[in-house]
Amino acid sequence: MIVMLEPDSPQSVVAAVLQVASQYKGVTPRPHVMEGSEYTVTEVYLLGPTAQVPTEPFEQIPGVRQVVRVSQKYRVIGRHKGQKMATTGFEYNGVTFDERSVQLFAGLCAVDTRENVESMMAALERCGIRTTRMGAYKPRTNPYEFQGLGAACLPWVFESAGKHGIKVVAMEVTHPRHIDEIRDALERSGNATGVMLQVGTRNAQNFELLKQIGQQRDFPVLFKRGMGITLEESLNACEYIASEGNPKIVFCLRGVKTHLGDPHRNMVDFAHVPVVRRLTRMPVCVDPSHAIGRADAPPDGLPDIFHSIGQGLIAGASMVLVDFHPHPEAALCDGPQALRLEQLAALQRYTHIVREAYVAVVKNGDGSAPTEVAA
Amino acid sequence: MIVMLEPDSPQSVVAAVLQVASQYKGVTPRPHVMEGSEYTVTEVYLLGPTAQVPTEPFEQIPGVRQVVRVSQKYRVIGRHKGQKMATTGFEYNGVTFDERSVQLFAGLCAVDTRENVESMMAALERCGIRTTRMGAYKPRTNPYEFQGLGAACLPWVFESAGKHGIKVVAMEVTHPRHIDEIRDALERSGNATGVMLQVGTRNAQNFELLKQIGQQRDFPVLFKRGMGITLEESLNACEYIASEGNPKIVFCLRGVKTHLGDPHRNMVDFAHVPVVRRLTRMPVCVDPSHAIGRADAPPDGLPDIFHSIGQGLIAGASMVLVDFHPHPEAALCDGPQALRLEQLAALQRYTHIVREAYVAVVKNGDGSAPTEVAA
Amino acid sequence: MIVMLEPDSPQSVVAAVLQVASQYKGVTPRPHVMEGSEYTVTEVYLLGPTAQVPTEPFEQIPGVRQVVRVSQKYRVIGRHKGQKMATTGFEYNGVTFDERSVQLFAGLCAVDTRENVESMMAALERCGIRTTRMGAYKPRTNPYEFQGLGAACLPWVFESAGKHGIKVVAMEVTHPRHIDEIRDALERSGNATGVMLQVGTRNAQNFELLKQIGQQRDFPVLFKRGMGITLEESLNACEYIASEGNPKIVFCLRGVKTHLGDPHRNMVDFAHVPVVRRLTRMPVCVDPSHAIGRADAPPDGLPDIFHSIGQGLIAGASMVLVDFHPHPEAALCDGPQALRLEQLAALQRYTHIVREAYVAVVKNGDGSAPTEVAA
Amino acid sequence: MIVMLEPDSPQSVVAAVLQVASQYKGVTPRPHVMEGSEYTVTEVYLLGPTAQVPTEPFEQIPGVRQVVRVSQKYRVIGRHKGQKMATTGFEYNGVTFDERSVQLFAGLCAVDTRENVESMMAALERCGIRTTRMGAYKPRTNPYEFQGLGAACLPWVFESAGKHGIKVVAMEVTHPRHIDEIRDALERSGNATGVMLQVGTRNAQNFELLKQIGQQRDFPVLFKRGMGITLEESLNACEYIASEGNPKIVFCLRGVKTHLGDPHRNMVDFAHVPVVRRLTRMPVCVDPSHAIGRADAPPDGLPDIFHSIGQGLIAGASMVLVDFHPHPEAALCDGPQALRLEQLAALQRYTHIVREAYVAVVKNGDGSAPTEVAA
Repeated sequence: MIVMLEPDSPQSVVAAVLQVASQYKGVTPRPHVMEGSEYTVTEVYLLGPTAQVPTEPFEQIPGVRQVVRVSQKYRVIGRHKGQKMATTGFEYNGVTFDERSVQLFAGLCAVDTRENVESMMAALERCGIRTTRMGAYKPRTNPYEFQGLGAACLPWVFESAGKHGIKVVAMEVTHPRHIDEIRDALERSGNATGVMLQVGTRNAQNFELLKQIGQQRDFPVLFKRGMGITLEESLNACEYIASEGNPKIVFCLRGVKTHLGDPHRNMVDFAHVPVVRRLTRMPVCVDPSHAIGRADAPPDGLPDIFHSIGQGLIAGASMVLVDFHPHPEAALCDGPQALRLEQLAALQRYTHIVREAYVAVVKNGDGSAPTEVAA
Repeated sequence: MIVMLEPDSPQSVVAAVLQVASQYKGVTPRPHVMEGSEYTVTEVYLLGPTAQVPTEPFEQIPGVRQVVRVSQKYRVIGRHKGQKMATTGFEYNGVTFDERSVQLFAGLCAVDTRENVESMMAALERCGIRTTRMGAYKPRTNPYEFQGLGAACLPWVFESAGKHGIKVVAMEVTHPRHIDEIRDALERSGNATGVMLQVGTRNAQNFELLKQIGQQRDFPVLFKRGMGITLEESLNACEYIASEGNPKIVFCLRGVKTHLGDPHRNMVDFAHVPVVRRLTRMPVCVDPSHAIGRADAPPDGLPDIFHSIGQGLIAGASMVLVDFHPHPEAALCDGPQALRLEQLAALQRYTHIVREAYVAVVKNGDGSAPTEVAA
Repeated sequence: MIVMLEPDSPQSVVAAVLQVASQYKGVTPRPHVMEGSEYTVTEVYLLGPTAQVPTEPFEQIPGVRQVVRVSQKYRVIGRHKGQKMATTGFEYNGVTFDERSVQLFAGLCAVDTRENVESMMAALERCGIRTTRMGAYKPRTNPYEFQGLGAACLPWVFESAGKHGIKVVAMEVTHPRHIDEIRDALERSGNATGVMLQVGTRNAQNFELLKQIGQQRDFPVLFKRGMGITLEESLNACEYIASEGNPKIVFCLRGVKTHLGDPHRNMVDFAHVPVVRRLTRMPVCVDPSHAIGRADAPPDGLPDIFHSIGQGLIAGASMVLVDFHPHPEAALCDGPQALRLEQLAALQRYTHIVREAYVAVVKNGDGSAPTEVAA
Repeated sequence: MIVMLEPDSPQSVVAAVLQVASQYKGVTPRPHVMEGSEYTVTEVYLLGPTAQVPTEPFEQIPGVRQVVRVSQKYRVIGRHKGQKMATTGFEYNGVTFDERSVQLFAGLCAVDTRENVESMMAALERCGIRTTRMGAYKPRTNPYEFQGLGAACLPWVFESAGKHGIKVVAMEVTHPRHIDEIRDALERSGNATGVMLQVGTRNAQNFELLKQIGQQRDFPVLFKRGMGITLEESLNACEYIASEGNPKIVFCLRGVKTHLGDPHRNMVDFAHVPVVRRLTRMPVCVDPSHAIGRADAPPDGLPDIFHSIGQGLIAGASMVLVDFHPHPEAALCDGPQALRLEQLAALQRYTHIVREAYVAVVKNGDGSAPTEVAA
């Protein structure tokens, strides 16, 4: 059962809900606060045997907007009946993650040299982009391949980010100690930038890691879909994070593993953008680099990677994670799929045009029902 | 080896090429004429042991533009080196199929009643749409399910099409005799409309059917990708049609079969739009109805089917095949995926906005190479 | 509704059933005769609106054993409630196809030369094997690849078969005219041998072909599972054959198409042997050659192809289709997966040992229920 | 480069190898000791830039049997050229894991009550089986489902195991702290039994966990194939464990995730048994319970689970992991796939018969090459 409070409700409303809840044996109330860019929404989850708990005592509390009974599925992240209006999203270090804007996370799949990091950050600054991706911890299929520079590179990565006005660095972690290393390095850098913890596709069902990421509140999370499991299983995995207390999650589609996607590296799954938006309240990110995995282009001159970004955006994705590299041919990891720095401005223009088209079709009301998303 | 002539070359050039070719033992020349909307392109394919055949004697013939050696793969349909400029597409019954325009084939998955056909055709006319889909022959998984009205419905389907100014009806055939039945019914209707023969996904490797379809020139072909085979295998199947002499083929993506596409009926494969455009010279169609298979929409109010159409168009698809029905709940086949007639105008507006965005990104030169597609 | 008669019932019982059935409007009776190796079973299918038809009037006819109401699914081929005892299988040209024995169809994937056919047939005769496979019509992914010798080779293939005492040749057909060509060639050979029509995986849902094969009764059918569709869809496709009147069908598992089967050519699906045996009454064949597609062996020296044959047999498969070639390295089609003639006797011994083990475990009653299969 | 010593070589040979290796800059020697049931094999891996390191200096050391250069792939676990004779396997707590015998790990998927654990252990003892599976830590798709009793149940599980003479309990761990909890509980039980650490399919690419498991030597490992990744990727994941120093790994096939396996829970992949045996030196286990996921049986009365076990054994699998439960209908996890205790003796007989058949076919030399596996 979820007790939804009015936006920006004072703490006293939460207290009142907790008091009422305490009357029902075995029921554990757990408040969830979602700080959006415009207002804060608080919901109190009633866990346990709530089937016999009546909704009226909660509905009568002033400041309570609605009480909904929810099925087990996606209890925290789900878009439940009656929550259609609920604004999704959050703010972190000055950057907004919701459906009203698009964030372009362009950067290095794997951090290799200071020079390349510096070139990348400078290129972003020239374009006015404040978000990037930087891989320090690289899980690789083969144990003898380059595994990333790890904690050693964090100081100069964060320093470079701060110097160029980068506000958020998306960075994969594969072990809880990486979170500590990142927190420490950030502090030592004077919090020069912020970090979004990325859960990689291979750890999509590493529930112990998910729980640890869910228990910390310092960093928001970018969760990448598991490449060989269903969408439903991946959404359930996100629920592990959220149910531990951290609701600041962006869900990232990155392609699935099947030969039917050949000649692309993976089978692009961006048709699931509207599905994730319907089933949950999470903003949706697309990762075209790992999905496509190659640099080809049709005769129109736009690389497949651009085309797939467009496919994500035209369906309402609001974040893009994309690999760039100053010298793709020399990258230590996934070079063939990296765009060149010269393509960054073009990508930004491309993104803008397609996003405008998405805004237009929604405004135009071309759907079968009135829209509620301002964009 | 392919001898490409200048656009609108006279027959004498073809004759000269054939004469030169006759000097090489075992080599069979086969001319292919592609009538585009603006000009006609002729190519002469030299089949057989061409490894030792020199290119110079052909290059010296006035009117020969270029001679290219091609690998075995996609000999006729392929976009070979040196053919980047070659305009793809064709015209049929007044409708142009190429990359310069988008054709919306909205109609009934399965013909059921005269009233429904008439309602559908009238709705198309009101929107100024001249292309539709109408299923008379329906291959079904289960032998005891409705298999379509067959030849019996053709007279009134074509009559209704003619009455409402419909120029092309896409219609699946599963046996060569269906082609004859269609030809006969069209003639008896005074050629009230035109027909595009559709190869269904279950017959994608029914090579005997493909060869028969390739041997006739009356009707262009809409080839649907096989749902459980690779893209390469499907393109090779198209080559069966083309190598028999009929190059007027549109390639249709319709989703592939894997549980990873859940909750959609199939896994949407429209990221392959740019791939087909790169590997071949065929225009590309998308069929969102069979790929998505359901009527849901995210909070922006646009059904998943719209979103996936947008994903096709933003990547350069130039034809859309989509199921409509006056009463989806009463349809004999695939009702859940049919849009309602009231959504037709909205879809037309939606299509227009997204196509404009595609034209804009190409014009804007946001790619990594100069574009050559005017749109 | 199915009216099952006692084994070897006279025609008068069928007539009595038809008369009773004629009293129910819209109900069409269709007798199915299954000639087993020991006795003949006749069933009368009542098609149409049978929900209101009572079972008693049929049950009271002397010679009627049982009347069962069946769901739509697998109406003819299915193993319905009350049919657990029903013997499956049939006899053709002196060879028995049922669960009591194992038939080894070893032969050429594609007929190439008279010498190779002769060598193969002679090797079979030396081992006392009377069944083989010989591909005359070869559907190939690429239109420019060898497509089989077609009707031209039939005379000398059948002559060689007859000379060496081969009773049944499994042969793929891809067009109804191939059936006629085979019938003609057999007649001209003085019916030197028999033919089992093989439906290939690419034509598994070519319903027009299936219907034609179902309408003839001269030849039994070997139906190969579709490589990219579900088992349920493949079983439904068999029902197309059976519902047209030909119940002499063996269902062949041949692997499915997914990268998860690498490094094998396909993903071996022989765990479905017991599933097909439970859901239907068809004997089950396994084709290890196309499933495995390579000649490797683990350190025990038995090739993967042997191991997978063993996996089929130990689960109750009663037919094996396997590629051999006198010179695998020179085969025109699928050479890498062909066994050498020297391995034929070893395979025969291998098959015998594993089959004995299957018989032993069934006799031993190691299951959860008493067994009814004598083996 | 791998320097292989003669079986049971003294430590002095290792020392000599290390000394020679120390002459090559950048090369790190790492000894791997595999204690087999009959003798101990030591190999010294030379890691780093070994391309220029000559083999002769090592070959001349008395006690060195062979020096092989290996490609990157599966450096430690792989079956490299020249290693065909190398005996695989190891001994743990009195139980032998190699290709000469079959170990049946029958037990509870999830530990629920003391009574059920006790019933299970007693049933095993009655059959003379000394190995079992017991799930204490249960990763579940949904965070709100039963997650296992965890460390709390270990004392009474180990006590019961010891009481009934169980020597090895296979137990999944999902976090390094679980290893410590197991070690502690075992010690407190007076080492009443032994534990085999199980890596679950969801953690198949949780490389941090794999490394930790590889760094401990107390417990052998049962590695379950990742359900959505290729066999090659799963073998590479095993290499993570082995390269950290623990070579006592059994590789477990448990089915892969694709709808093509329906109606089974997963697609059974036991045709890969000979592939794993060829590519690596690990013993191979099959897990039919998770692969099949249901209790059905064909008319021969043997459940699909038995049939798939037979398919594993007939191809050379030497370990079986199978779910049992005193009351399958009341199991907290995966009840439908659990066998009943009454079926244990039948399974044991079944296993014995099929294993005998495997031994017979290998002895019979039915392969294409002389066999080297005594069984």
